[in-house]
Amino acid sequence: MVNVGVIGYGYWGPNLVRNFNSLDGSRVKLVCDIDESALKRVKRAYPGIQVTQDVNELISSKNIDAVIIATPVITHYELAKKALGEGKHVFVEKPFTYKAEQAEELIEIGEKKRLKIMVDHTFLFTGAVRKIKQLIEEGVLGNLLYFDSIRVNLGLFQHDVNVVWDLAPHDLSIMDYLIKDQPIAVVATGEAHYNHGLEDVAYITIYFSRNMIAHLNVNWLSPVKIRTVLIGGDKKMLVWDDIAPDDKIKIYDKGVEIETKEGVYDLLVSYRSGDMWAPRIDQAEALKLEAEHYFDCLENGKKPINDGMSGLRVVKMLEAANKSLKKKGELVYL
Amino acid sequence: MVNVGVIGYGYWGPNLVRNFNSLDGSRVKLVCDIDESALKRVKRAYPGIQVTQDVNELISSKNIDAVIIATPVITHYELAKKALGEGKHVFVEKPFTYKAEQAEELIEIGEKKRLKIMVDHTFLFTGAVRKIKQLIEEGVLGNLLYFDSIRVNLGLFQHDVNVVWDLAPHDLSIMDYLIKDQPIAVVATGEAHYNHGLEDVAYITIYFSRNMIAHLNVNWLSPVKIRTVLIGGDKKMLVWDDIAPDDKIKIYDKGVEIETKEGVYDLLVSYRSGDMWAPRIDQAEALKLEAEHYFDCLENGKKPINDGMSGLRVVKMLEAANKSLKKKGELVYL
Amino acid sequence: MVNVGVIGYGYWGPNLVRNFNSLDGSRVKLVCDIDESALKRVKRAYPGIQVTQDVNELISSKNIDAVIIATPVITHYELAKKALGEGKHVFVEKPFTYKAEQAEELIEIGEKKRLKIMVDHTFLFTGAVRKIKQLIEEGVLGNLLYFDSIRVNLGLFQHDVNVVWDLAPHDLSIMDYLIKDQPIAVVATGEAHYNHGLEDVAYITIYFSRNMIAHLNVNWLSPVKIRTVLIGGDKKMLVWDDIAPDDKIKIYDKGVEIETKEGVYDLLVSYRSGDMWAPRIDQAEALKLEAEHYFDCLENGKKPINDGMSGLRVVKMLEAANKSLKKKGELVYL
Amino acid sequence: MVNVGVIGYGYWGPNLVRNFNSLDGSRVKLVCDIDESALKRVKRAYPGIQVTQDVNELISSKNIDAVIIATPVITHYELAKKALGEGKHVFVEKPFTYKAEQAEELIEIGEKKRLKIMVDHTFLFTGAVRKIKQLIEEGVLGNLLYFDSIRVNLGLFQHDVNVVWDLAPHDLSIMDYLIKDQPIAVVATGEAHYNHGLEDVAYITIYFSRNMIAHLNVNWLSPVKIRTVLIGGDKKMLVWDDIAPDDKIKIYDKGVEIETKEGVYDLLVSYRSGDMWAPRIDQAEALKLEAEHYFDCLENGKKPINDGMSGLRVVKMLEAANKSLKKKGELVYL
Repeated sequence: MVNVGVIGYGYWGPNLVRNFNSLDGSRVKLVCDIDESALKRVKRAYPGIQVTQDVNELISSKNIDAVIIATPVITHYELAKKALGEGKHVFVEKPFTYKAEQAEELIEIGEKKRLKIMVDHTFLFTGAVRKIKQLIEEGVLGNLLYFDSIRVNLGLFQHDVNVVWDLAPHDLSIMDYLIKDQPIAVVATGEAHYNHGLEDVAYITIYFSRNMIAHLNVNWLSPVKIRTVLIGGDKKMLVWDDIAPDDKIKIYDKGVEIETKEGVYDLLVSYRSGDMWAPRIDQAEALKLEAEHYFDCLENGKKPINDGMSGLRVVKMLEAANKSLKKKGELVYL
Repeated sequence: MVNVGVIGYGYWGPNLVRNFNSLDGSRVKLVCDIDESALKRVKRAYPGIQVTQDVNELISSKNIDAVIIATPVITHYELAKKALGEGKHVFVEKPFTYKAEQAEELIEIGEKKRLKIMVDHTFLFTGAVRKIKQLIEEGVLGNLLYFDSIRVNLGLFQHDVNVVWDLAPHDLSIMDYLIKDQPIAVVATGEAHYNHGLEDVAYITIYFSRNMIAHLNVNWLSPVKIRTVLIGGDKKMLVWDDIAPDDKIKIYDKGVEIETKEGVYDLLVSYRSGDMWAPRIDQAEALKLEAEHYFDCLENGKKPINDGMSGLRVVKMLEAANKSLKKKGELVYL
Repeated sequence: MVNVGVIGYGYWGPNLVRNFNSLDGSRVKLVCDIDESALKRVKRAYPGIQVTQDVNELISSKNIDAVIIATPVITHYELAKKALGEGKHVFVEKPFTYKAEQAEELIEIGEKKRLKIMVDHTFLFTGAVRKIKQLIEEGVLGNLLYFDSIRVNLGLFQHDVNVVWDLAPHDLSIMDYLIKDQPIAVVATGEAHYNHGLEDVAYITIYFSRNMIAHLNVNWLSPVKIRTVLIGGDKKMLVWDDIAPDDKIKIYDKGVEIETKEGVYDLLVSYRSGDMWAPRIDQAEALKLEAEHYFDCLENGKKPINDGMSGLRVVKMLEAANKSLKKKGELVYL
Repeated sequence: MVNVGVIGYGYWGPNLVRNFNSLDGSRVKLVCDIDESALKRVKRAYPGIQVTQDVNELISSKNIDAVIIATPVITHYELAKKALGEGKHVFVEKPFTYKAEQAEELIEIGEKKRLKIMVDHTFLFTGAVRKIKQLIEEGVLGNLLYFDSIRVNLGLFQHDVNVVWDLAPHDLSIMDYLIKDQPIAVVATGEAHYNHGLEDVAYITIYFSRNMIAHLNVNWLSPVKIRTVLIGGDKKMLVWDDIAPDDKIKIYDKGVEIETKEGVYDLLVSYRSGDMWAPRIDQAEALKLEAEHYFDCLENGKKPINDGMSGLRVVKMLEAANKSLKKKGELVYL
């Protein structure tokens, strides 16, 4: 039995408590929030869970083995460091930390104390991403050519971070998971319209060690919600529309065939346009699977797919994107 | 009566001949192509039109007042210069020229000799663009925040130009027409996968003199065809889906309301989510309207909306985009 | 304060308890179900609500003012009659009863004892139906020409009723609410493929007192879920797509203009094709509004829009449809 | 070489002339229309084709082997009879004739004189219908359960026929081609709103010799264009959306699995929800393939898939539907 404490009961906290509390072998013992009304909501929904406004009480509690940190990103480092210091495993909201060096320090502490760190890259546990991962690993798409994501809507303006820190962690964690090639450098552009200079529209290109390219379009000012990822491979191409009620993933037997005849300078290009296929996607709740994965890793000593290192890689790309953004598209190496 | 000669009867030529030949007050007298089979197609369809393989014969013909140039971009400058030299008006396929300095020279000659230059920015004459232009000019959208275009499909690889030169002229000419703000600098990224180092995927950001931003996503390797433009304004926002069989333009009464109270640092953001409205779009063929506009300008001494200057502005942005692309996103000022 | 008892805690019961229990001025005191595990779920979620397996205990309880009946349709009549007999108001799942004469008897009892009957035509309280109602009443659509509904998906086969009894009550209650014309007769066709002769595909036409016509397409064997209603008016036409994530209702300024010149036999038809408009739809939960309406009617002596009479009208059409279905489309007068 | 004469150069005639004139081994020699301006259009487009306003001149011409009849349905019988009488093969627009007995007479004459009759059921030659035919014949869908077609838009009102005669021939000819079961009886309902009592909205059910059912929804008063056919089979189900720019046909591995245990009255229903698959559809022009099929049948003595018998079967169903429509859904046996 793993006992868990949760810090932060705002937007995402209730989902965390519900899922971590309903697993066999896990129990939420304690929830901390500075907002009293949040704690009242906890008590009403879960009379058996203790609440506190004192974060130190939670972190030092003898009753818990792991701390879930669901607070603003700026606080992640300090809270996670304290929790690791008290010998607790940690599960941290994305993005992992506000600076890469903080993430590196936490990973080092975790390794030294043999404590597990997991970053809440929930999307990795969706049926869609698991299916795409499988398709890529089985070689269905062939060599990847590009990864192009659009994540736009009339967004919840954040007061402390720009649209890159708010929306791009989703895409970067997905990209990091799906693509085994090495990202090398980042170019980001964007603009701020409302929010004290915090960008609400941004475009991020990621260059890789070979001629694979990734691009993210994130926007808080779109009248329509779009969540579309195009992945081009040299064998097949894939469109993932996460808004679609059905057939979220479509795989197209489309592509380009290049023939280069000896002595002929001209390119002989032909196009392949075959069937489309939409695999059935598992509907299980991603956060439930993620919680199960966490406990499986804790109890059986496994390495989480969304461990501190994956959190660090995402933070490094966020840092680079923001640095490039400030310099209007300057190439920033990772 | 304006008499016209057409150079190039490949992909687009037949549309040009059909439209310029069916106008009252205009007649195609001569078509030139180096490909004999193309000329045979002309004769079969239009027994009354003369054909030639000799471009000089066409350009120097006494029977024509204007030359339409529908050949590869690399040849535009030389042909247009000759035609202007022979005292002919010119109508040139987009992009206008391969280099900005060529465009500038042609404009200068045209002005000196009082000959009209028109660049075939056909999209400006579509019902959709004319409607958007009207909405912007009437202030329906308010101040523009961003212009975000996606133009992707399994493209016809060009042997001589990359995806930027092939697809971006559409978006750049539309943007140039719709947005009165001054573009200042360009950042472009992209990748080549197949074509002797010619990019088949590219992303272009354009910075303006104020905090308006534009972005173009052009891709020859997409399994699905997407032609979508989002235009965000501080009053209303617009989505133009050029593939949609109906309701191509949707205007959303959505937006952000910012309230800044004195002495309060925090932002008070609220969201407006009202009705959507899809205006009826005129279905007239764009090229027909463009041809009519050309003759109207010729006969009544008007300035074409797609004159040499607009062609030059597009070429400058293409040049800057390609320069930036080669340097992986370096900011290139216009 | 109105105290409520709920009979039946299956598929829909939890939604009823949640909504009726969260209203100001209302409280669920008692829930009855024959399934013990259902009662356990009640206790876990609502420790303060009493449970029982004895329906008579609930109906005769002094602690409750109104009984909600969420059991199979076959049991509605008996339970509602008992509840009215004990002086309780009733709120009955749709369809109201299995036979029209049962509905008539219940209405009579209710009137005699001045008790309120409400039938759970939840759809009437959706933002979409309320908006359509408003548009029709304001004359936006003009005279209605037809009402055409498609409600198909891979359905939950019912063991006791056919697809008409399962799906058509939704459409019939909506139609009854929106259209003030008098339905006169019904024609229904359909087929059974799997279920002991219970139809899983059916088509229902309803004739009205004037040349307005309604049609329902209900199907449990469709691979795709479709929930679309077309309403044609002589001024405007409307499409309601209840699956669409946004813009569920679209109003088209499209129609036919007929000109009949004196002495001219031939019809002069012209077509109008103007703008489309998608009004913002209120997102409030329909069942919450319905519960509020119920209490408003109870406390202020108002007549529910979904009273016993509306329930009766729907049951009469269901009976007629089934009678016609058995006789392969015979016209059955209402 | 087959020489062809075409009667009627209205809406569809130009397509017929273009296709029949461009085939190897076929040539259009003569076109007849009573409208002089139509004949001028012929001469302009095809200087080599003779024109006439006299239908008898065309039919009796020694220069032609086959007559294409593209005139209003009311005239088909007389013209086809004359043409067969003159020893010409005939190709008749759908619907074949206005009465079944006329069709029967024409078929008899054709057989006696060994002349080929073909009815222009163009849809049978589309890539979509050919693919569906193949899927059904290969048993991919299993036993068919239903065929449900929607064909609605703001229609071109016909002055002489109702919406059933105008739109349903498409669906009936498709259904006749795809489904080998025997249609037994028809129920039709509908309403007329504008057009001298000619129905503009109609719903047609067709019963078959087993528990397969077909339904057609045809409507001239819809604000949106819908061309959707659902075909349910006990193995797989299919949706054909003829408006969709891509992936017109989608095959769903969805269905119902019924298990009936001995001694158990209750039905054990389970649902299967697997992958979706959209086969590539051949894009060739249907009318071109139909013309080729016609000449193949003429020259090689083959029986057309759209012969007079298929035309007759469609006319019989149209007659039955109209009879049922007039009697408000009365079951009319075929």
